[in-house]
Amino acid sequence: MNLQKPSIVLTGDRPTGPLHLGHFVGSLRSRLDLQEKYKQYVMIADVQALTDNFANPDKVINNIYQVATDYLSVGIDPAKTTIFVQSKITQLAELTVYLMNMVNLGRLERNPTVKQEIKQRGFEKEVPVGFLCYPISQTSDITAFKADIVPVGQDQIAILEQSNEIIRRFNRTYNKEVLKEIKPFLSQVPKLVGIDGKSKASKSENNAIFLSDSPQLVKQKVYSMYTDPDHIKISDPGKVEGNVVFAYLDAFYLDKEEVKSLKAHYRKGGLGDSSLKSLLTQTLEEFLEPIRQKRAEITMNYVKDVLIQGTSRAQKVAQDTLNEVKGAMGINYW
Amino acid sequence: MNLQKPSIVLTGDRPTGPLHLGHFVGSLRSRLDLQEKYKQYVMIADVQALTDNFANPDKVINNIYQVATDYLSVGIDPAKTTIFVQSKITQLAELTVYLMNMVNLGRLERNPTVKQEIKQRGFEKEVPVGFLCYPISQTSDITAFKADIVPVGQDQIAILEQSNEIIRRFNRTYNKEVLKEIKPFLSQVPKLVGIDGKSKASKSENNAIFLSDSPQLVKQKVYSMYTDPDHIKISDPGKVEGNVVFAYLDAFYLDKEEVKSLKAHYRKGGLGDSSLKSLLTQTLEEFLEPIRQKRAEITMNYVKDVLIQGTSRAQKVAQDTLNEVKGAMGINYW
Repeated sequence: MNLQKPSIVLTGDRPTGPLHLGHFVGSLRSRLDLQEKYKQYVMIADVQALTDNFANPDKVINNIYQVATDYLSVGIDPAKTTIFVQSKITQLAELTVYLMNMVNLGRLERNPTVKQEIKQRGFEKEVPVGFLCYPISQTSDITAFKADIVPVGQDQIAILEQSNEIIRRFNRTYNKEVLKEIKPFLSQVPKLVGIDGKSKASKSENNAIFLSDSPQLVKQKVYSMYTDPDHIKISDPGKVEGNVVFAYLDAFYLDKEEVKSLKAHYRKGGLGDSSLKSLLTQTLEEFLEPIRQKRAEITMNYVKDVLIQGTSRAQKVAQDTLNEVKGAMGINYW
Repeated sequence: MNLQKPSIVLTGDRPTGPLHLGHFVGSLRSRLDLQEKYKQYVMIADVQALTDNFANPDKVINNIYQVATDYLSVGIDPAKTTIFVQSKITQLAELTVYLMNMVNLGRLERNPTVKQEIKQRGFEKEVPVGFLCYPISQTSDITAFKADIVPVGQDQIAILEQSNEIIRRFNRTYNKEVLKEIKPFLSQVPKLVGIDGKSKASKSENNAIFLSDSPQLVKQKVYSMYTDPDHIKISDPGKVEGNVVFAYLDAFYLDKEEVKSLKAHYRKGGLGDSSLKSLLTQTLEEFLEPIRQKRAEITMNYVKDVLIQGTSRAQKVAQDTLNEVKGAMGINYW
């Protein structure tokens, strides 16, 4: 008899902006699938977002409800997925403090992902300690829910390796298998490029189509998409590689064979950017319209209820883990 | 009308061993005085003790009740002083996490006190992050109780300066005077030397007389005290400086004039070590016997009650502060 427990998924977002099509392709789509198979926790990571937005908390605060509404509008189902707000789970901070004893400064500084992120933010030696320690805090988030599946991109593998080191060291130190090792669940889908074709879609690059954009704005963004600058006349042969319109058709047009033949046509010449953009606009509208309709029915009170209930469920689970953690350490005095 | 609030004292000990005469001279005596004048919180700092004893938690765990009993036996009065256990105040971990955003790694590494402590422990680059961050955690402990008086030795001044930097940065960042700046309250009394005369009395140096030592053990320790190795015959002139017996008489013999004349006599010659040691034994017995009697009346259940009640009071105060902190940051979503 196999009594192995079912897998538990932990994932989430830093609430620093509304979610966009890149989030859908990169994570939301997969969460819709995961919530059918596993116990799934989705964390709105305000504490983590504050580690590099501490001086601008409004950016974080204003996006808590926004991100939660985005989740609900795409079909994340609070009956299947526990959606919660990180800062409300005080047990995560507690666990972080104990895990901070399990990692040395040198090891933290050598983490290649964090190293790069520090550089990107221009932090270098003046890195806020909270930011430097976010891999520890993340280990706490994951282990508090005994999650063994954590969907990540390739760039986050180094963080999870560090998490597993911390987990093994904790279990070894206190001689008990309290914390569960993590399996990275590599996202199969490539990152969605921004409408400028320069980098991945993101709020900060101002090159994303948001799930909450109006039809007018979506159309406008599609028509400003980078295509092939050498494709001047409709009859010219066009380049498909690096052409943002095709990247979006690849991600959202359901008939993959049709996309193949469109690409062939475009390469040969005779297919204009404007007909392609019209097709993409229509495709995105078919995708976005039901999301928009769902959003229109969601009240702020409902979102609040979902968050309160999810958070309360998450608190109980995290408290159980904390009790085990403190038990293993022997610091449950009464 | 002066509506200034009364001062609040925060102090405490890392529970890594029973308390000894050095603790009495350095802090307990002053706490007996402070509890009459101010609101006093005394923290049993298990979380902090774990930052460099994480691999040996028993050392910490076994001393929680021991330290609490030491407090009660010398007259720390739970009706006047709130005695609590750090790990039970989860709000402290929460606040620590937010304060970690207020200090840069470079600044933390430059803290001269921490630098020295890292060296003492042989941690160097392999310093556990938890230990490196203890000044942040300490800032959280102090500010959570809005303490403005923190009794410290000279060596802790740099830590409090860093705390005040963190406090000012927090208040400036969130544009509200939430956290209170700290006044160091410098201990007037010099540190008590160990019985070996080499360094200050401490458990790790195995040169301390514990408050819970038996009369026999006290006598034995007094008779092994370092005096003046050149004072061979009673009639020889003796040295008072560096003579441990005089250091303890200075600290515990009530008639200071009498000590002065004993010193003169010893310097001149004609006063034997053994009469002096007999006098010190008697002096310490007069001091320790009432403490021992009080200890004998204290039950484990009473200590537990004191800790539970103190901790519960402390939790309420810390939660109030946390609510203000989160309010200032704007992250009190519901």
